[in-house]
Amino acid sequence: MHFTIDTNKFVTSVQHANRAVTSRTTIPILTGIKISATTEGITLIGSDSDISIETYIPYSDEEREYMTVHEEGEMVLQAKYFSEIVRKMPGETLTLKKDGQMAATIESDSVIFNLNGYDPENYPRLPQLEEDHVIQLPQHLLKDIIRQTVFAVSTQETRPVLTGVHFEIKDGKLTATATDSHRLAMRTIGVEAEETLEINNVIIPGKSLVELSRILDDAENMITIVVTSTQVLFKMENLLFFSRLLDGKFPLTSNMIPSEGKTSMTVSTKALIRSLERAMLLSREAKNNVIHLRSNGPKEIEISSVSAEVGKVKESLSTSDFDGEELQIAFNGKNISDALKVIDSENISILFTGAMSPFVVRPIDHEQMIHLFSPVRTY
Amino acid sequence: MHFTIDTNKFVTSVQHANRAVTSRTTIPILTGIKISATTEGITLIGSDSDISIETYIPYSDEEREYMTVHEEGEMVLQAKYFSEIVRKMPGETLTLKKDGQMAATIESDSVIFNLNGYDPENYPRLPQLEEDHVIQLPQHLLKDIIRQTVFAVSTQETRPVLTGVHFEIKDGKLTATATDSHRLAMRTIGVEAEETLEINNVIIPGKSLVELSRILDDAENMITIVVTSTQVLFKMENLLFFSRLLDGKFPLTSNMIPSEGKTSMTVSTKALIRSLERAMLLSREAKNNVIHLRSNGPKEIEISSVSAEVGKVKESLSTSDFDGEELQIAFNGKNISDALKVIDSENISILFTGAMSPFVVRPIDHEQMIHLFSPVRTY
Repeated sequence: MHFTIDTNKFVTSVQHANRAVTSRTTIPILTGIKISATTEGITLIGSDSDISIETYIPYSDEEREYMTVHEEGEMVLQAKYFSEIVRKMPGETLTLKKDGQMAATIESDSVIFNLNGYDPENYPRLPQLEEDHVIQLPQHLLKDIIRQTVFAVSTQETRPVLTGVHFEIKDGKLTATATDSHRLAMRTIGVEAEETLEINNVIIPGKSLVELSRILDDAENMITIVVTSTQVLFKMENLLFFSRLLDGKFPLTSNMIPSEGKTSMTVSTKALIRSLERAMLLSREAKNNVIHLRSNGPKEIEISSVSAEVGKVKESLSTSDFDGEELQIAFNGKNISDALKVIDSENISILFTGAMSPFVVRPIDHEQMIHLFSPVRTY
Repeated sequence: MHFTIDTNKFVTSVQHANRAVTSRTTIPILTGIKISATTEGITLIGSDSDISIETYIPYSDEEREYMTVHEEGEMVLQAKYFSEIVRKMPGETLTLKKDGQMAATIESDSVIFNLNGYDPENYPRLPQLEEDHVIQLPQHLLKDIIRQTVFAVSTQETRPVLTGVHFEIKDGKLTATATDSHRLAMRTIGVEAEETLEINNVIIPGKSLVELSRILDDAENMITIVVTSTQVLFKMENLLFFSRLLDGKFPLTSNMIPSEGKTSMTVSTKALIRSLERAMLLSREAKNNVIHLRSNGPKEIEISSVSAEVGKVKESLSTSDFDGEELQIAFNGKNISDALKVIDSENISILFTGAMSPFVVRPIDHEQMIHLFSPVRTY
């Protein structure tokens, strides 16, 4: 293998592939990035066996040519060093040349690196997915869906399925759901797919989605999603992102959402976030973020919290569209505040079903998002 | 105590005083900020017993009035909560009122905090310093001096004096020196002080200078420095910064600097930094940043490093004004690169006195800065 390539173009592609690589792997070759050069272009692969990212640099595009491939071939080089080395190369182009079976020379201007690697024969193959179940979405929308659900996944491995986001497609609608059993975030959108397409119990690890989200841009570009029983593949221009799916059955969440309640009201999203942040100053450490909410007639609620050692805080917040009984409830303020931060609506409605039952938060502007929370017992 | 004050003005002042407070103190009351209100203004004090910061908000300035003091008095409130609470207050003003001997009510708009505190009688008094030894400097210059020396202090407590920066004044010149015994950074400037003023063996803890530097601005405003045998005081407008001095005798460094050598050359500061950064990619972990430098005729040096597991790198760098013998030397690349980053001169001169003796790096543009380094044995 021997090629000369535009440094910037190469660096971007290496950084993307490097996102999948972790030094904590138990399989030594996965600390490497696989580089394959053909006269048509260069492919880079990084993987931690849960996530794999393949990036491709075509020989040329409409603008210009990016490389000269003197000799085809493949190599695996240690990702940690390789990605930093190419990033710090001084010249506009760099040359990478195989130098013995498992070593490479990387040159740019007067700089020459000799870097040891691994035998590319031993690098695991990427899965070949059957493209039976395929949907398409604009990238920015997928990014929104991830942002608006992934924060609610469980961080505890006791119930592994809850560390992922559940995707379901039915009647031309995609529903993404995440829950850690104390709170639930659900986002729905219409998707372009075959009418008859139904997908259920597809659970993508939260960690994979967070990495994917870092690669997605805010543009209208479409992304293609291919789903099989064990893998999901996100296809972008010159980039493939594979993730394994989580095994197991996601809890049935659709019947958890109460449709009727005892008390409902509308509150300013930002005002409630700020109020919770102040209240959490005192409840953060000792009290597991317990915040109290009390209705005070139809126009006002009181938010309060107490810390025996530090002190207490209370403040009133104006509400509108108040309907139903007076109410007193306690909850984990961090959970509510996390959810409010991903709601892009100026006001939210809250539906309470009693002091000891789950309550629902929705944006006022649209019906594509639901957040559900368990209250906290305080006695 | 009872006053109403402009929130922003109060927040800035509290944040400054809070810089001296640490939660790691063994003296509980020092986790608090002391607030004293008189009709003339409000004073805030934070301290970790090494550093103390006193900020003052005058009742008014040319622009406007900042407060209404209903009742004079003093309190100590827990810094960690207090500083965050005032920062998150919603209104343009906030009211602080003593509420029992050791508690306060802080109100802003509809928000009411009740916060527990400490008995202000128990808060330690700040030292009263004799103003016999006083110098004045523009703030930006003091900030430069700190930045250009403090990185070289020792981080090890085995020789405590080396964790500080040594200040000396003689013949109207201030010299600041820091060394960890492997490298030395020295910065000299002219100062405004009484002609006969001599100060020697004043060792200010590096940690104090780093904190001070965060408060200093880049302006021409003068800062007054008062030195006693155990304390130093930096006086700014409405802010006093006290630091204890380190006990002990700083090593005599002036005679360490070699004036003549075997090989000298001029190199581009930036080019050398970048070259060292590339070489350190390989020597960072295993090899304690060992970098090799070899002269290659009068126009070129070669920078290289090796890691048995990862690989090796070499590159050539052009030099000018080469004088003396051919040279081969090894050093800690991180130490050199730290120093080069604070040199504000496009080119540096290096004076080598032999492969096993210290070498000197100076900016080309002026003579106010010297860096000295020990080489590393590699065999």
